[in-house]
Amino acid sequence: MTNFQATKAMFDLPEGLIYLDGNSLGPLPSAASAAMQDVMQNQWGEMLITGWNKAGWMDQPTRVGDRIARLIGAEPGHVVMGDTLSIKVYQALAAALDLAPEGRKVILSDSGNFPSDLYMADGLIKSLKQNHELRIVAPEDVAENITEDVAVLMLTEVDYRTGRLHDMKALTTLAHAKGVVTVWDLAHTAGATDVRLSECNADFAVGCTYKYLNGGPGAPAFIYVAPRHADTARPALSGWLGHDAPFAFDLDYRPGAGIERMRVGTPPVLALTALEKALDIWDLTTISDVRQKSQDLTALFISEVESRCPQLQLATPRDPAKRGSQVSFHFEQGYAAMQALISRGVIGDFRAPDIMRFGFTPLYIDETDVRAAVDILEDVMTNALWDRPEFKTRSKVT
Amino acid sequence: MTNFQATKAMFDLPEGLIYLDGNSLGPLPSAASAAMQDVMQNQWGEMLITGWNKAGWMDQPTRVGDRIARLIGAEPGHVVMGDTLSIKVYQALAAALDLAPEGRKVILSDSGNFPSDLYMADGLIKSLKQNHELRIVAPEDVAENITEDVAVLMLTEVDYRTGRLHDMKALTTLAHAKGVVTVWDLAHTAGATDVRLSECNADFAVGCTYKYLNGGPGAPAFIYVAPRHADTARPALSGWLGHDAPFAFDLDYRPGAGIERMRVGTPPVLALTALEKALDIWDLTTISDVRQKSQDLTALFISEVESRCPQLQLATPRDPAKRGSQVSFHFEQGYAAMQALISRGVIGDFRAPDIMRFGFTPLYIDETDVRAAVDILEDVMTNALWDRPEFKTRSKVT
Repeated sequence: MTNFQATKAMFDLPEGLIYLDGNSLGPLPSAASAAMQDVMQNQWGEMLITGWNKAGWMDQPTRVGDRIARLIGAEPGHVVMGDTLSIKVYQALAAALDLAPEGRKVILSDSGNFPSDLYMADGLIKSLKQNHELRIVAPEDVAENITEDVAVLMLTEVDYRTGRLHDMKALTTLAHAKGVVTVWDLAHTAGATDVRLSECNADFAVGCTYKYLNGGPGAPAFIYVAPRHADTARPALSGWLGHDAPFAFDLDYRPGAGIERMRVGTPPVLALTALEKALDIWDLTTISDVRQKSQDLTALFISEVESRCPQLQLATPRDPAKRGSQVSFHFEQGYAAMQALISRGVIGDFRAPDIMRFGFTPLYIDETDVRAAVDILEDVMTNALWDRPEFKTRSKVT
Repeated sequence: MTNFQATKAMFDLPEGLIYLDGNSLGPLPSAASAAMQDVMQNQWGEMLITGWNKAGWMDQPTRVGDRIARLIGAEPGHVVMGDTLSIKVYQALAAALDLAPEGRKVILSDSGNFPSDLYMADGLIKSLKQNHELRIVAPEDVAENITEDVAVLMLTEVDYRTGRLHDMKALTTLAHAKGVVTVWDLAHTAGATDVRLSECNADFAVGCTYKYLNGGPGAPAFIYVAPRHADTARPALSGWLGHDAPFAFDLDYRPGAGIERMRVGTPPVLALTALEKALDIWDLTTISDVRQKSQDLTALFISEVESRCPQLQLATPRDPAKRGSQVSFHFEQGYAAMQALISRGVIGDFRAPDIMRFGFTPLYIDETDVRAAVDILEDVMTNALWDRPEFKTRSKVT
């Protein structure tokens, strides 16, 4: 069993803060700053252009991708880093549409998907002008809407508001039975749940690394392409580093082998360096240990809050197998209540219209934190701190 | 007149090296490391999720964009940072095609364009399946090929091999006379030449920041949209941060006002922080001073090399107004000769089949450097050092 005190010791966490927002932005790994100094001063500063070879920058996107592959049940050599999650969604979706049965025009998604995924689909559809349709159903209606007119099923495993977790294996199986290609967004599951892409037979997957993987603000995204599609998937974003021979500088594009073709432009070396250090922490644990502990922590939080804060109504599935690594509660004054909590050192966040959201990441959150957070939450609720005017002013980002 | 000793002092340049490859990757600005420590430890580490507001991360893409706007003659509020140059090419090209006269199907470019731009156009065309054509002509034939069937003229101002500079004003004027929309790639001109987007009436422009802007390996790209198109250009890559109200989390996409709509995903905060420090150096100079000095340095290099190294044949236009900030020479054994030069501390690079390429960036290269580089080059050539076997082995990236 993992020593989670050891993993916690690998983060720089501000004194006196209980950070339950790692599902939005993970905290700073202690080793990341020194690694960044090294890449800047000893690599960029000293090696300059030769760093691309000497320091291994050019291979960084697949090297880091392989480390993430381990955490999401992907085959080695089938994950590559780069760009942002929205760009990776576009890339995966465009390739998936190409692989779908001729004539199918429907992209099926759900209203629990993160809006950016829906927006990217909308942008792609409007560019293609081929009468594609983005069909958005309620999360609980996805299964019955996987019909034979669907080209691609595009889902985010965990609903960013409620924490509800889709059954990737069941939905992928259902999709394949109808000839539907799947695109899974792992934004809230990579590093949080025991994702098993290969076992589930997923076609494409994408994810970000600034949440449960602690890569830092704006850390690069990743894309997975199943081995069976890797050499046939067409890269719509056909950049030079996805070319079969980028340094031949041919005028014609020829896709690289396998996952290499999903590379686009010059890799974000500095950001990937911070991420590499964050991934070192996973050498001390396993994703199944993390998942088990996460389920324990979320269960504890739910039971404590329900018994001590009757004003809050659970928005997250009670069955631990059906939720990600966050717990959400409905509360009409949720925005102000969250501001009050934050002022007392418990950082969660708020999602409209009334969701108070708390992320639990076993790498640095333990039972003591959970109990301390509930103590403060109980105080906020019992004394109606949310009713104070200073907590009601809204800022742009929460 | 600028004090270029002061700008040079703002870089960490390795002792004893003459770095003539800033047109590929600019060197480390001295202040960048400390700024990175600050953003990591005091912002990410301490503020965590609240950094998006408190540290101004959310506005960083437009704040930094405005600083670049000054260097490329763009109107303030019309440049935004993000992604890679290849992604920005795709974004600009997709929007430009939309704005082109109905029914036109040709994207005109030239064989001097950087291949990734051509690859991205190819990927877009293959996705659209609307019978677009990528027409690639020789650089000197561009003007006569701007005909009324052309939808978009997509050019990189400076040829990455020869350093030849297109006349943006003349070609844009010609393009507009035929109803053609223009996309200019400033990869080799932003920070190097006196780009005047607004004065030239350019429609779209894109560029990278790791060359003459010294943002670091894989630094983010930028996109410019002319004010007259800013509120009508359709963002094909319609990510949530380009939405009119990203934090409303609507299911439907509604493009943001002006350049905001060209934002896609979460901004690369760490990389943008390094770039911000690199841009501080420009507070000590002006782009016109830099351009003047660059023309002097390249002229000096050309005349010295031509008089002392008769084996080398100039590939760059002799007229300073017709070249960027690099000088290239043809030499059959150019690869080995460049390796020999590098081993002697003069860093340039090689581009197939026979181009030895030297970039001159007045911010940190002066006449003494130019003369010292030519001394070493003369030695390499006179003594045929390129003929030694140790210089003939090829590596993947040069």
